[in-house]
Amino acid sequence: MKTNLLLTPGPTPVPEAVRRVLAEPIIHHRTPQYRKIFQDVSERLKKVFLTKNPVYTYTGSGTMCMEASIVNFHSTGDQTLVVEGGKFAERFTKIAKAFGLKPTAMKVTYGEAVNPEAVREELKKNKDIKSVCVQLCETSTAVLNDIKALGKVVAETDAILIVDAISGLAADRLETDNWGVDLVIGGSQKALMLPPGLAFLSVSAKARQRVDTANIPRFYSDLRAYEKGMADADTPWTPAVGLVLGLGKSLELIEQEGLENVFKRCADNAAFAREKVKAMGMELFSKAPSSTLTAAVLPQGIDGKKLVKVMRDEKGVTFAGGQGELEGKIVRMCHMGAITRSDLEEGLRVLRATLEEMSVGSK
Amino acid sequence: MKTNLLLTPGPTPVPEAVRRVLAEPIIHHRTPQYRKIFQDVSERLKKVFLTKNPVYTYTGSGTMCMEASIVNFHSTGDQTLVVEGGKFAERFTKIAKAFGLKPTAMKVTYGEAVNPEAVREELKKNKDIKSVCVQLCETSTAVLNDIKALGKVVAETDAILIVDAISGLAADRLETDNWGVDLVIGGSQKALMLPPGLAFLSVSAKARQRVDTANIPRFYSDLRAYEKGMADADTPWTPAVGLVLGLGKSLELIEQEGLENVFKRCADNAAFAREKVKAMGMELFSKAPSSTLTAAVLPQGIDGKKLVKVMRDEKGVTFAGGQGELEGKIVRMCHMGAITRSDLEEGLRVLRATLEEMSVGSK
Repeated sequence: MKTNLLLTPGPTPVPEAVRRVLAEPIIHHRTPQYRKIFQDVSERLKKVFLTKNPVYTYTGSGTMCMEASIVNFHSTGDQTLVVEGGKFAERFTKIAKAFGLKPTAMKVTYGEAVNPEAVREELKKNKDIKSVCVQLCETSTAVLNDIKALGKVVAETDAILIVDAISGLAADRLETDNWGVDLVIGGSQKALMLPPGLAFLSVSAKARQRVDTANIPRFYSDLRAYEKGMADADTPWTPAVGLVLGLGKSLELIEQEGLENVFKRCADNAAFAREKVKAMGMELFSKAPSSTLTAAVLPQGIDGKKLVKVMRDEKGVTFAGGQGELEGKIVRMCHMGAITRSDLEEGLRVLRATLEEMSVGSK
Repeated sequence: MKTNLLLTPGPTPVPEAVRRVLAEPIIHHRTPQYRKIFQDVSERLKKVFLTKNPVYTYTGSGTMCMEASIVNFHSTGDQTLVVEGGKFAERFTKIAKAFGLKPTAMKVTYGEAVNPEAVREELKKNKDIKSVCVQLCETSTAVLNDIKALGKVVAETDAILIVDAISGLAADRLETDNWGVDLVIGGSQKALMLPPGLAFLSVSAKARQRVDTANIPRFYSDLRAYEKGMADADTPWTPAVGLVLGLGKSLELIEQEGLENVFKRCADNAAFAREKVKAMGMELFSKAPSSTLTAAVLPQGIDGKKLVKVMRDEKGVTFAGGQGELEGKIVRMCHMGAITRSDLEEGLRVLRATLEEMSVGSK
């Protein structure tokens, strides 16, 4: 088997320059040396989030910051409107329920983006809605939501806009401040080109007002502890030091390329992948395709689970399959982070060949 | 400045063999390849925890699993007895309060171990105590608690024994099953010789009975999600894949040396350090010294904060200072993980020289 070509939408490949940093001797976090590094990456993260708001670094999976976005900014019984168009959207609903909120799911057909006007109507109808939760890019369907339009809609109300940009950040454009996004959730293992283990949360002034009155019990995720830490360029609990050092390097790679160029590269590669998928006779699953990843609807009769397995185990190319109700029906390939045009070409070549073999085999 | 010699009680130095694994290309976690690795390390972790109970791996700081040990096994209003003899013990109290428990602090003089008979008396007096929280090794004071005796005391009751072994595990002996410990909390950045970012929780059958009736809201830390994941050799949220791969290697290093030999080496090095500290005319802070780290009481007139700074920034040796009320008064040096006798000798040599310089300087 060849070296595995990882085309999954997270974890994404970690560039060698970053991996070299991950292999360096560890340093202690309660030192001026580390504080300087942490302060530096915290500032530079803002430029990727396109915000002047503070960006907090949590040690955990992205889900940790999804939880942080609920527990720090709501009280028991609060209503939240969750745009539900895929697996990760559903996680917001589960978290909200777990902490005693009353989530209303705005169901969106899988593969479609939410209509911002529908959100406006809902917010008009129900003034008690405290927040709107939505994915920038819903990784399970490859849908890009129109956060700019949603930002305008939510800004007219007292609700806050919570955007899960775990996948999407630094691949699909997200102008946190210009678009009025209150909370942005990020993760290390996507376009930030690191292994999983860090999650990020940017917090607007409008959202911050909620924190001291929010009554949901919390400790590890308590924003106030992170704020107190950040005042001293520190974190409340022992941070994933190695990943923070690696983050310095991956931010450097992004800065060298330029964030606008990164957006353009992802968009170009996504357009390329869509064209190739269509040329293979497949449809795109997403009606609002993202630049983060592309989802292709597999031809009738193709077992998607087997396809992914054969590609990964026999041909060294890892695609993602479908999740939940999409299991076996789609394949997903990533464009963000360190994935290059030639990686994509290779992945698509193997996809085409494997589809042909399986079609012949099934006749 | 020389290469920094890290003698802090976490993070501890990461061996080169482990760092090489951390630098390897990342793999995807929802694959049979990763599941096999995760299942394997989960089984091998049990041998370090000396338990047949499941050991769950959380992505987060050790504090994440301290929180998990509270929220999954208690209900609002539950009473817990916290053995409070240092900074990390106090964290248990803070977590318990944050989630609506009623913690009773059993104050223990800093530097002393808890008297198991005092715990027995407290449990006799108050049958409503649902749990006893204690550190194996209280890192802030270098005290080793007698978990074996505490295990007997708590086993006589319906309470569960929660041991924070974040530092201590695989350095000071902890026989989870033989001693009747219900929950053991571990962390990656101590004797497991990894960067921070993973936390571990072993769960006894007695503790498990509590989980389904425990009413504290939880999501990220919800044990039931981890159990469901583990049934398929998986985790509920994206794991810190790189650290899990590194864990395979650090467990291999422990297995090669043999856990009993690891305990003996740490004990021998701790005895060596204590002897040297006394030979320098200093007292040991801990009346119940651990094999994990040694805390030396600095001579009158020595500014401990300055000492640590000079050693670290000018001499390339990082010790830990005192925390909280011990700030400036003690230095702490670590014996666990990959720290060798010659590392300790070098650290102690630099400590002696720096103390002499500072004594001369202050005259």
